[in-house]
Amino acid sequence: MANDYLKDKCGVFGIFGHKDAARLTYLGLYALQHRGQESAGIVTSDGRLVREHKGMGLVSEVFNEEEISSLTGNIAIGHTRYSTTGSSNIKNAQPFLVETLAGHIAVAHNGNLVNALTLRRKLEKEGAIFQSSMDSEIAIHAIAHSKKKDFKERIKDGISQLEGAFSMALLVEDGIIAVRDKRGFRPLSLGKLDGAYVIASETCAFDLIHAEFIRDIEPGEILFITDKGLKSDRISDKKTRCSFCVFEYIYFSRPDSSIYGHNVHLTRKRQGRELAKEAPCKADLVIAIPDSGSSAAIGYSEQSGIPLDMGMVRNHYIGRTFIQPAQHIRDLSVRVKLNPVKDVVKGKKIVVIEDSIVRGTTSKARIRTLREAGAKEIHMRVSCPPHISPCYYGIDFPTKEELIGSSHTVEEVRRFIGLDSLAYLSLEGLYKAMPLPKNKFCVSCFTGKYHVLPEHGIGKFNLENQLSFLNKI
Amino acid sequence: MANDYLKDKCGVFGIFGHKDAARLTYLGLYALQHRGQESAGIVTSDGRLVREHKGMGLVSEVFNEEEISSLTGNIAIGHTRYSTTGSSNIKNAQPFLVETLAGHIAVAHNGNLVNALTLRRKLEKEGAIFQSSMDSEIAIHAIAHSKKKDFKERIKDGISQLEGAFSMALLVEDGIIAVRDKRGFRPLSLGKLDGAYVIASETCAFDLIHAEFIRDIEPGEILFITDKGLKSDRISDKKTRCSFCVFEYIYFSRPDSSIYGHNVHLTRKRQGRELAKEAPCKADLVIAIPDSGSSAAIGYSEQSGIPLDMGMVRNHYIGRTFIQPAQHIRDLSVRVKLNPVKDVVKGKKIVVIEDSIVRGTTSKARIRTLREAGAKEIHMRVSCPPHISPCYYGIDFPTKEELIGSSHTVEEVRRFIGLDSLAYLSLEGLYKAMPLPKNKFCVSCFTGKYHVLPEHGIGKFNLENQLSFLNKI
Amino acid sequence: MANDYLKDKCGVFGIFGHKDAARLTYLGLYALQHRGQESAGIVTSDGRLVREHKGMGLVSEVFNEEEISSLTGNIAIGHTRYSTTGSSNIKNAQPFLVETLAGHIAVAHNGNLVNALTLRRKLEKEGAIFQSSMDSEIAIHAIAHSKKKDFKERIKDGISQLEGAFSMALLVEDGIIAVRDKRGFRPLSLGKLDGAYVIASETCAFDLIHAEFIRDIEPGEILFITDKGLKSDRISDKKTRCSFCVFEYIYFSRPDSSIYGHNVHLTRKRQGRELAKEAPCKADLVIAIPDSGSSAAIGYSEQSGIPLDMGMVRNHYIGRTFIQPAQHIRDLSVRVKLNPVKDVVKGKKIVVIEDSIVRGTTSKARIRTLREAGAKEIHMRVSCPPHISPCYYGIDFPTKEELIGSSHTVEEVRRFIGLDSLAYLSLEGLYKAMPLPKNKFCVSCFTGKYHVLPEHGIGKFNLENQLSFLNKI
Amino acid sequence: MANDYLKDKCGVFGIFGHKDAARLTYLGLYALQHRGQESAGIVTSDGRLVREHKGMGLVSEVFNEEEISSLTGNIAIGHTRYSTTGSSNIKNAQPFLVETLAGHIAVAHNGNLVNALTLRRKLEKEGAIFQSSMDSEIAIHAIAHSKKKDFKERIKDGISQLEGAFSMALLVEDGIIAVRDKRGFRPLSLGKLDGAYVIASETCAFDLIHAEFIRDIEPGEILFITDKGLKSDRISDKKTRCSFCVFEYIYFSRPDSSIYGHNVHLTRKRQGRELAKEAPCKADLVIAIPDSGSSAAIGYSEQSGIPLDMGMVRNHYIGRTFIQPAQHIRDLSVRVKLNPVKDVVKGKKIVVIEDSIVRGTTSKARIRTLREAGAKEIHMRVSCPPHISPCYYGIDFPTKEELIGSSHTVEEVRRFIGLDSLAYLSLEGLYKAMPLPKNKFCVSCFTGKYHVLPEHGIGKFNLENQLSFLNKI
Repeated sequence: MANDYLKDKCGVFGIFGHKDAARLTYLGLYALQHRGQESAGIVTSDGRLVREHKGMGLVSEVFNEEEISSLTGNIAIGHTRYSTTGSSNIKNAQPFLVETLAGHIAVAHNGNLVNALTLRRKLEKEGAIFQSSMDSEIAIHAIAHSKKKDFKERIKDGISQLEGAFSMALLVEDGIIAVRDKRGFRPLSLGKLDGAYVIASETCAFDLIHAEFIRDIEPGEILFITDKGLKSDRISDKKTRCSFCVFEYIYFSRPDSSIYGHNVHLTRKRQGRELAKEAPCKADLVIAIPDSGSSAAIGYSEQSGIPLDMGMVRNHYIGRTFIQPAQHIRDLSVRVKLNPVKDVVKGKKIVVIEDSIVRGTTSKARIRTLREAGAKEIHMRVSCPPHISPCYYGIDFPTKEELIGSSHTVEEVRRFIGLDSLAYLSLEGLYKAMPLPKNKFCVSCFTGKYHVLPEHGIGKFNLENQLSFLNKI
Repeated sequence: MANDYLKDKCGVFGIFGHKDAARLTYLGLYALQHRGQESAGIVTSDGRLVREHKGMGLVSEVFNEEEISSLTGNIAIGHTRYSTTGSSNIKNAQPFLVETLAGHIAVAHNGNLVNALTLRRKLEKEGAIFQSSMDSEIAIHAIAHSKKKDFKERIKDGISQLEGAFSMALLVEDGIIAVRDKRGFRPLSLGKLDGAYVIASETCAFDLIHAEFIRDIEPGEILFITDKGLKSDRISDKKTRCSFCVFEYIYFSRPDSSIYGHNVHLTRKRQGRELAKEAPCKADLVIAIPDSGSSAAIGYSEQSGIPLDMGMVRNHYIGRTFIQPAQHIRDLSVRVKLNPVKDVVKGKKIVVIEDSIVRGTTSKARIRTLREAGAKEIHMRVSCPPHISPCYYGIDFPTKEELIGSSHTVEEVRRFIGLDSLAYLSLEGLYKAMPLPKNKFCVSCFTGKYHVLPEHGIGKFNLENQLSFLNKI
Repeated sequence: MANDYLKDKCGVFGIFGHKDAARLTYLGLYALQHRGQESAGIVTSDGRLVREHKGMGLVSEVFNEEEISSLTGNIAIGHTRYSTTGSSNIKNAQPFLVETLAGHIAVAHNGNLVNALTLRRKLEKEGAIFQSSMDSEIAIHAIAHSKKKDFKERIKDGISQLEGAFSMALLVEDGIIAVRDKRGFRPLSLGKLDGAYVIASETCAFDLIHAEFIRDIEPGEILFITDKGLKSDRISDKKTRCSFCVFEYIYFSRPDSSIYGHNVHLTRKRQGRELAKEAPCKADLVIAIPDSGSSAAIGYSEQSGIPLDMGMVRNHYIGRTFIQPAQHIRDLSVRVKLNPVKDVVKGKKIVVIEDSIVRGTTSKARIRTLREAGAKEIHMRVSCPPHISPCYYGIDFPTKEELIGSSHTVEEVRRFIGLDSLAYLSLEGLYKAMPLPKNKFCVSCFTGKYHVLPEHGIGKFNLENQLSFLNKI
Repeated sequence: MANDYLKDKCGVFGIFGHKDAARLTYLGLYALQHRGQESAGIVTSDGRLVREHKGMGLVSEVFNEEEISSLTGNIAIGHTRYSTTGSSNIKNAQPFLVETLAGHIAVAHNGNLVNALTLRRKLEKEGAIFQSSMDSEIAIHAIAHSKKKDFKERIKDGISQLEGAFSMALLVEDGIIAVRDKRGFRPLSLGKLDGAYVIASETCAFDLIHAEFIRDIEPGEILFITDKGLKSDRISDKKTRCSFCVFEYIYFSRPDSSIYGHNVHLTRKRQGRELAKEAPCKADLVIAIPDSGSSAAIGYSEQSGIPLDMGMVRNHYIGRTFIQPAQHIRDLSVRVKLNPVKDVVKGKKIVVIEDSIVRGTTSKARIRTLREAGAKEIHMRVSCPPHISPCYYGIDFPTKEELIGSSHTVEEVRRFIGLDSLAYLSLEGLYKAMPLPKNKFCVSCFTGKYHVLPEHGIGKFNLENQLSFLNKI
């Protein structure tokens, strides 16, 4: 997949009760860097004083030894963010920290609220002044405006007003709170290290710091972690169907992570095996689009018996600020990331494994470079169904119009990309590969059927644009 | 291999006669980034005016659109450098540009001279003032001090005084010159694009800009590229045995490059096949150390029939400035780069394919993380013989004492790393895998036998240290 | 005076209806740079879109051509700030801009509220979340929480809750509002340029842009400037005695400014004349402490007939980040700014004119350097009375305990500083020099009598410290 | 004077034998900052190891505590530089440090060589490779190419080839060398501090660090300062007439410095007195152009009896990067630096004291602002004769054509500037004010008669331009 299109994924981390809280959070964010490269931040508390450091860029760019050292305290939360360009500024970096009459509160958020505008308008009418266009700020104001007496009740009250997808870590002066929306769109896990509790979007963050996985935060759970230990509560008493994002398995999460309790790489291998069963192919070689197609390609190769070879090589030094210096070199942005290994593909019939197709333009460019490298036949197998509809729960797919699968038949897509054959994994095949029952998943992007609708109906949803409009009327 | 130990590799690029000379050089350096990440630079000429831009860091950090635009002219050379920490400063960034009475001259150099000190001392006695501790500056002074009348003769005269390993691109105001030492230690290729000539350390740079490979620069060749076309000459008339660096195939070059005329990935796959023949293993899975072991692992898997799986995942966001934030987390620097996929290796007998072992400490740490992930048996197969001796021709291996293979038996190394079994590819096996006759290669690091000795005998060779000493006596 | 102790002075500027609004604001801030060097900022509006740029440092460091160009619109306000170190961060830079349901509003504030804490606590109880520890943010929240229907009424309602010293420029999407507290502690003037209205803390800002001075904003006035012209209103109907800060004449304002309608330099010259009458001195030379004592020294010289000479030279290149590189050089920080001209003072009886004495330590160091330069006798005359009490209206004097005049007799101060004689201008003498009747001025710092008390009684007042405390109880 | 036109002045500092050598050099450069604001640098030696730090900008911007601390050793030299824009880059920052066979050598240079090109060409023919277009590099190469055996003899031999103006501090690993050309164009003084020897362009640098002035370095003297003490030698045995730059007294040096043994401020006051005698004026007030005209204005006021007042105020916060944000504001660049005090000059007959007139444009703008402020009559008195010819000895005056005094009569200049009357101090009057006999001075810029001609005859001399040309033929 062209990862250019996946923008609102974020990484969330938290730790309570460790003397190296900031350092471990730094490492946790490092492991979650693939979930967001726009900005990073850490907020810590020593029980009284709260400190923060945030910046634009990679975790390794935002923090240095001095800053980590200054983030004292044994409580910390952290965040890595990737968002659309328009809102790419330091004001929207997280965690979002404020000081209220009841003390400091900070939030790190992964997901997307569907009632953001309504809630924001309501709070502004009550006098609230917003600094950013982030969902997470709405959560904070909802808490601050709660009329409940007890601080925990205020948090619960504020959170209960949120609708949509949110996996959050909140920090208060003497604890952290892990929250996951009632449908559980985004992952959030609980771990333990040296007696301290840890939360993270993915378990690969636990591995890096040698923390032990305990369990997932439950959908609808609000978990208070203080020096009195864990106290679990429910956002609401109502039972709701789960809506785990299936795309976390297909593309988002790191292959070494276990999410929703199961390993990502093995799930992808099963997708590759199902794909080989559903859409076999007469080819000399299986070629992965590295690295996102690698797991499924191993599965396809094993199931089909067609040998896997390294037909494309990834350049590891793609800076985030690559300039496009030569307009006349076709497919440069694709070519600079992936280069075919000519001597491998020349004269060969190859089957290329992609994790997904969004607009089709990136796939088209990649196939062209393989053709130029001399491949005799090129077949593509995609390890999920065609994307036909946007996501309102935290993934920034393009609009429906731009999703090639929404308006083109498979045959049309094949021609557009320039393939000898093309097949997608069916939804049923996808379910077979999944480690959990199919009714646990959100597959809205493949079906166009949504479990909870955004406030203004179906359409490209963007808080920033809406706000600009709203303020003028 | 722990690539921390391979430091003096450099990438060289040059282009003559293209209106986008600087932009294409920028791209060429991008493709050669793996050969050096310390500094980067480009020098251009429009036939009269010469411009340069150099900086510390990755190509993408050193250049932006403004700088590329300011590098006008249709002649350019570029360089990426990786060197030892001591000399890591902008003064040692290349290309090295000076203005002489005869005009500007710049040099970009890959390799290591073995008579640097003697030559520098001779030139200093004649009044030369050196700005840096780089070999390449010596070449420039040797040219400037030549008594020959003709400029081309002066260049040839200066270059002919150099001994050791050097693949160079020189820029003068109206042309570029490609030079390769008579033994041809380091690669250097000639290509063509839109009528312009291109030279590059590896052919992957040609692929990125759509240039066509023509031939390698010959060992001992000095090739003048001007608007009169190509004019090839010999540094010296004497015939010498070739000494192509075998380690370019084993580790250095990109798998998608062809060096010495043959693809790197396919050579590595053959190494893996030979290794499987020489050192078979009863195992459930073949696991590559990504990405340097991947090609050989495919070969080993194909030959042995043992399935290949993704047992370790590489973190793509390792910044160059990663701080070591948690001393107490064992193996952190290894773990942050590679994480085992627990569910793949747990309970399995695995055979791990490494490209080489230098000190053994990195391998030891990696094996420990695989043990902790639950691997039942761990066997290691290394796709080259043990390193027993340093390199004087451009690779900064550690000293003989630090090379574990020089002082430990294979059994001792196995115990040190903590393996169930360990085997290296034999030198004969390595030769079998190579695409060229064995008498074409330099294998000094495996044998301790050198084709040309450095001036002060065998020992850790370091121009900087020597200079400090020399100036005091 | 040691200007290190005068920290909360700020410069305020605004312009409505000029196509070069941002550029003229940049220049206005340039002219007001002496009122604050910590941070600078500009907010503009084109009637619909609001833009801002703020940064730490001097106006010339914060803005470049690109930023000025991007600040489009014909409405602008700007601010330069100097504050205590603790709160020296970008969050406290002004203008403070927020987006409310009714549109954007920004504020630039000079002065100090005396009911900041009470008001902030009240607003926080209503759910307000504060981003900074600035007084000006309180004003904004007070406006946002107002229950009035009309926007102008809401502004007036919010402002009317503020107590203490405030001269403010507010920007809304279609206008600017100039406000001055009912006692008029800080200056604020109205001017005109090419048909556009301009407001500024001092008239020197008008001079630079060739604007014409019209009148001062009245104490208690709230002036709405929109495309309908000027609309003047009163914050409150109650009449109050004026409290113009006398220290603006003595030290703060630029000598070329006219404040409260009269030129500063001429006022200071009159102070020097009064001082010469009250405290004559037998001396060879009058020496000014440059540049703050220069005007009074001219007056003293003229009145006394003692020639004025350049006894000390000011170094114009004192960077804001001067490091103290040599602990053992006595009086270095004084000496680096001012150097005596030995050949002028050697063997001479001199009378040194200071504008004021705060702690006495800086004066002591200066006198010592003059002694070392060979002065035979050193007499000091100070052009205002002794400071005995802190300021709650916008000047960050040290605490009462640190004000040497509060605890020491003139004779004790003379001995501490090391003078042959010392005399201050009397309060009556000061009044005589002033261009306005004495009942127009605030002279609390000389008398300890305050026209309006801060909420927690007399004492060192600091919102930041108070907030930290408040949040814990 | 418009100090924009005075560009090649530099500040030189050196210290031998003090444990705080770098810190004291930092302070010395601080005091000499007025002699150059383009770049600054320090080189230190601890007897064996040599360290350097250089950067673009003010001393306070180039150095921080960390860098000062890293400059270990008790020997140091430093430099501040101001040069023409064309060569404004870090390569031309000084001190210029190289490593030769005989050890490190660094040079800090104030002045201008007149045989730079000839000497450079000669050295290049011998194989020398130059890094910069600085005169000082030529000195270093001349030393390196000397055939003398003894190091001191080589230095003397190299220096003796230089012609023109040079006051230099050289650093070698175990000492510093102070050199002044045989005519002594530029000042250089020797001082002592805590047993350590100090050299500086002006004595104000001694004052700041509490060093004691000993004597000036003699014209033609080469003074070796090592742990054996002072060893004075002569560059050449020939006796030459002195050519002290008279403009150091008129404008360059700080008023608190003593140069050529006498205080600058008092000399300028005498110029003012002579001016009052030669060119009296019926006026109400004497007004100085601050700060360069201040000393002469005091002298003029004292002699004439006309009171001095502050008619213009200088803005102390002119950043070095002031952008010109408003083309339509006439005289903005003048106005932003100096603002008239309207209430002082309105309706008054004033006599304005300028230190010199170069192009006349700046004076014209200043006079216009005084007219607009309401001055009734404006008379200008200039404290030196008209400039009619360029300087080849270190001051970057504009070309003869641009010097208004070279082509216009006094009456024409008066009309151009817009004055009621104009008079210059005569050359004889200038001599009378000087503290040394008239045959000690270089007054070429007033007479067009030169004591030593540049190699290519009279004309605008510029090494950079010449080099570009030279390399093409």
